[in-house]
Parts: sequence; C-alpha cells; structure tokens
Amino acid sequence: MNIIKPIVGITMGDPAGIGPETCVEALTNPEIYASCKPLLIGCEGTLQRALEQKGLDQKGFRLHVITDPKDGIFELGVIDVINTGTYDWSSILFGEVQKLAGQMAYDAILKSIDLAMDKQIDIVGTAPIHKEAIKLIGVPQAGHTEIFQDLTNSPYALTMFNCHKMRVFFVSRHMSLLNACKYATKERVLESVKQIHEELSKLGMDRPKIAVAALNPHGSDNGLFGNEEKDHLIPAVESAKELGINAIGPVPADSVFYRGKNGMYDGILSLYHDQGHIACKTYDFEKSVTITFGLPFLRSSVDHGTAFDIAGKNIAQSISLVESTLQSAEYWKMQRS
Amino acid sequence: MNIIKPIVGITMGDPAGIGPETCVEALTNPEIYASCKPLLIGCEGTLQRALEQKGLDQKGFRLHVITDPKDGIFELGVIDVINTGTYDWSSILFGEVQKLAGQMAYDAILKSIDLAMDKQIDIVGTAPIHKEAIKLIGVPQAGHTEIFQDLTNSPYALTMFNCHKMRVFFVSRHMSLLNACKYATKERVLESVKQIHEELSKLGMDRPKIAVAALNPHGSDNGLFGNEEKDHLIPAVESAKELGINAIGPVPADSVFYRGKNGMYDGILSLYHDQGHIACKTYDFEKSVTITFGLPFLRSSVDHGTAFDIAGKNIAQSISLVESTLQSAEYWKMQRS
Repeated sequence: MNIIKPIVGITMGDPAGIGPETCVEALTNPEIYASCKPLLIGCEGTLQRALEQKGLDQKGFRLHVITDPKDGIFELGVIDVINTGTYDWSSILFGEVQKLAGQMAYDAILKSIDLAMDKQIDIVGTAPIHKEAIKLIGVPQAGHTEIFQDLTNSPYALTMFNCHKMRVFFVSRHMSLLNACKYATKERVLESVKQIHEELSKLGMDRPKIAVAALNPHGSDNGLFGNEEKDHLIPAVESAKELGINAIGPVPADSVFYRGKNGMYDGILSLYHDQGHIACKTYDFEKSVTITFGLPFLRSSVDHGTAFDIAGKNIAQSISLVESTLQSAEYWKMQRS
Repeated sequence: MNIIKPIVGITMGDPAGIGPETCVEALTNPEIYASCKPLLIGCEGTLQRALEQKGLDQKGFRLHVITDPKDGIFELGVIDVINTGTYDWSSILFGEVQKLAGQMAYDAILKSIDLAMDKQIDIVGTAPIHKEAIKLIGVPQAGHTEIFQDLTNSPYALTMFNCHKMRVFFVSRHMSLLNACKYATKERVLESVKQIHEELSKLGMDRPKIAVAALNPHGSDNGLFGNEEKDHLIPAVESAKELGINAIGPVPADSVFYRGKNGMYDGILSLYHDQGHIACKTYDFEKSVTITFGLPFLRSSVDHGTAFDIAGKNIAQSISLVESTLQSAEYWKMQRS
C-alpha cells in the first residue's frame, strides 16, 4: 500500500527557549517518519548547535539544509532544514528575552506560512515563541494563533485541544474568568458550534455530535445558580439544532468531559480556557496537543511554553512536539479520506 | 494483628431513588467487611424489598434488624439494619418526589446523627436524598452537608473530594460561576486554607502541603487576565505562610490538578465547584467520593444523586457507595494512627 504522507514544516520557535532542542530531538523519533515527512524551519546554526549539545551528531544524525521542500530526504538520520536567514545566532543567550531571538522565531513563522500557502508543505507545526520577544520587534499579534489567522486572511482560527478521544474547543481562552462568563453569549456559542460542525464535517464525520458544556455547577440546577444556561446556552443549542447541527447540552461540566473521554461526543465546546484545559491536562498532560482549524492548512502546536528556566540544559523533552506532529498528520489524513 | 474497624452507619437515602438498592448491594461486597463494620439505617420494609428485588435473598443474604449497633453481627451475608420507624413504605413509588419518602430519608439522617453523637457508630455514610422531598416536610437546609453541620452545631463542615492521590477542597460550591469568582476573597480563601491545614493535620500529616488553585487562565499571566490573583489569592497564600502553614500558589488550574494527581500536594483548594469536580471526575469518575470533615465524626457521601430515572430497575451500581465507605474507613484510621 502506498501511504501518502503529509510534509510537516516545524518552526523552531524562540532560540532562547527549548524549541530548537526539542525540534531536533523530535526528528530522531522513527514514529514521526512513519507518519509524515518532517522538516525544520529556522536558523541552521542554532539547530546545529542543538544537535551537538544533545550529542545527536555523535549518534549519526545530521542536518540537511534545503531551500525547497521537494529536495527533502525525509529519512530517519537526516534532519531536513529550511534555513531562514543569516543571524548572529551564537549571541543568543538561553533563557532571556532578546530582540534577535524574537526576529528568528518570527522569520520561521513567516517562512512556514509562505511554504504552506504555496502548498510546498501541508502542515505547520510550531515550537513555542516568547510573547515578549516578538513584541520587541513590533509584531502586533499576541501569539501564534492570531499571527496565522491574520497573515493567511482567515475568517476564523479554531483552536482544538485533542486528548485521546476528547476534542475540545473554546468559546474564549485568554481572558479573565469573570469576563469569560460574560463573553459566552448565545451568539458566540452558536458561532463556535457552527465552526466546530464545519471543521469536524471536513474530517469526514457525518453530523458530528457536539456537546456544549454548561457554565454553572450542575448546569445551574434549573436556574438555582445562574441564568446563563437559560438565557444563552439552551437557546444557542436550540438554534444550532434548527440549522441541522447535531448539538446537545448544556451538559454539566463535570460530566461532559468524563463522557467525552469515553467517546460519547465528536467535539466538546468549553466555555472558558480552564474548563477544557483542566479536563485534558489532568487526564493526560502529555497527550494534550493543540490543532488549529480554519486556516488554509492545518497547524499544530505543543502544549508548553519556551521554558526559559531549562533551555539549553538538555532536559527538555520532545514528547509534546512528537505527539502534536503525529496527531496533525492523522487529522490531515482524515481531511483527505 | 488485631485490626480495629470503625462502625459505619449508612443512611438509605430517599426510598424513591436508588439509595436502598445500592445500600443492600454494597453490603454484599467482602471488601467492605474487611475494612469496617457496616450497618444500614432506614426502613426495614424498604430494604427488604430492595434485597428481594435484586434477588439477594436467593443468594443467602438476609437482613438482621437491631436497635443497638453493639448487637450487629457485621459479617458478610448478614446485613445489619437499624430500623427508623413504621411507615406505609409499600406506597412509595419509584422516581417521584414524595413527602413520605422525604420523611423516611430525613429520619435516617436524624438517627445517624443520634448514633454518631452518642459514639455508637464512628462514621456516617449517606446515600442520596432528594432536595425537593425534604423540602416538602419543611427541612430548611439545602442538603446533607448543611443538615449535618447545623444539627451537630459544628462551626464548619469542610467538604473534601477524594480521587486517588488528589484531595480537593472548595471555597464555594453551589453558586453561579460569576458569584463564585467574586466569592473567593482573600479572607475566605485564607479561612479555607486554615481549615484544610487543621483537618489534614488531624490525619497525622506534618505541615501538609496545600496548593491554592488560580482563578484565571495561566494564573492571570501576571495580571494580563484578571486581578484576583494579585488582589486576593497571593495575599491569602502569604498570610497562610505567616501563620506557619505550608501553602503554595496560586497555581494555574490546568497544572495544579495534574500535579496533585501525581502526589505533589496533600490538599488542593479549588476556587469554584467545577474546577475541582472537572479534574476528579474526568480523571476517575467512580473513584471520586466526598468526605466531610469538621463534624464531630466523619461523614462520607456517594457522588451521584437519587437517579429517579433508573430507581427500582436493578441497574444502579453500588460502586460509588462501596468506594466512599472504604475511603471513609481509611480516613478514620488515619485520624487514629
């Protein structure tokens, strides 16, 4: 059987963080090569240093610098790299916010978008950037998701948290819990459910079952604690049903993830950041990865930050990067099956 | 070795729900008898019917009605029962809110408190009651916890959710999420931490490590999303430390339970109902049970309701009642070791 594998371009992230070392380590994993054709996007010098610091050159791994993904070798032992420029990379200090580091991280992102928009790569995987560092070079967006959405002119970017059988989406993420309570209006919840339906349908699911989590304990116990279910969540689910969407809920939050874990739903809409994050990360921290839908290509992300405190010390693990890469390749295949 | 076993009085709960059937089934479990001396508190006729409906009489199990716990046999096969009165029990319909059912459930609670205050039993385990049914007979309290606190004149009742290595406590439980956000003031958080310290110390822990969960995503990322960490949670933890309490936090909620699951903390303070409930129930629904501290005796509770929809149909499982009974016996032994 001829298995079609997607080309995954992985951006190296902020070179002052654990991005480069986890990138080269991930590409020593045979599972990755069985699942996709990976290449790294970033500064050649930084990646070579990471390779050597981890002693991987001694184990026979080497970088293979290319300018066009079609020249990639994509075989275990050879780490294909698209070099993004000439930098004074040896000046970068581990664990510090630096303008040059922000520039290098951002250049890798820009390159990944160019390649993906040009269909030279199929998926973008991202190692962590540092928000302060990209701010130093004037990047207006807060993070990866916003950068990718804006630069690809996408109407929305739909973040999904995947953890085993749970696919968790979010009405809001990075805002205070008080604001998140008020943010989850009928209109926004309905809009999220429609986007989830759209993206899960693209994966080949027929009438995907989408559960909307409740906001209040016990789903408010018929209005005993809070009105959000009555005023916003129930009407949003009803409206979704009228559109032919297989939506249910609101389901009390302490049941919805337990049921999702057991495969009862194709997708779960979380009403605030921690609701879905607590569920996934408590269940299996390392298998919790992020996939972004709604862009012209799939994007995956590790579920950790730059970890400045341990950068360059050879203790960072690539398990999250490996897992997110494998899962994004699976989703790419689902979109095409 | 002579193992001292606590006497556990288990109230049968609302007879229109799954309480009686789960009670008799739990007492066919040899693990229970290995761990404690269990007896049921409730209506003899109701319990006999449950025994027969489950066919347990055909398997050699029989009720043994006593008036004093010291007359209990406490051996597998004999189900010791303290009868709480003479009722028209055969009139009770499964799955309906009924005044008589509320009275029978409440009588069992009152009897359990009498026995426990008189030290005739060591622990009270409670099967579920129906809030509407006890309201019909004029019980002013909202649920078990409030009834036990009031009738034992206890200054506080501290609810703990136990799930494997996680011991989760709550600043608030049954209120809307919006109100819970505002309820978690410095004073209340500090008060909770002090109570947790007190109760965990009674279990023999030396300077128990107590983690306070954050309220906002990423613990507000230094104030980017919300001020509650700065204004309330950090000062509460600082004040607790000044009192010599081994408190830490606020720890982002999507890390604190993952770490707790791995045994990093002796106790975790959850800031709202779902925060701790999502963590425990997603991780292991059936091993999540409730223990109440702060009363003159330990009280345990199942983590489900009356389940009117399946009552009397022989499909309810006693696993939660078994687990809560076993765990309460363990905590009783810890308090005495």
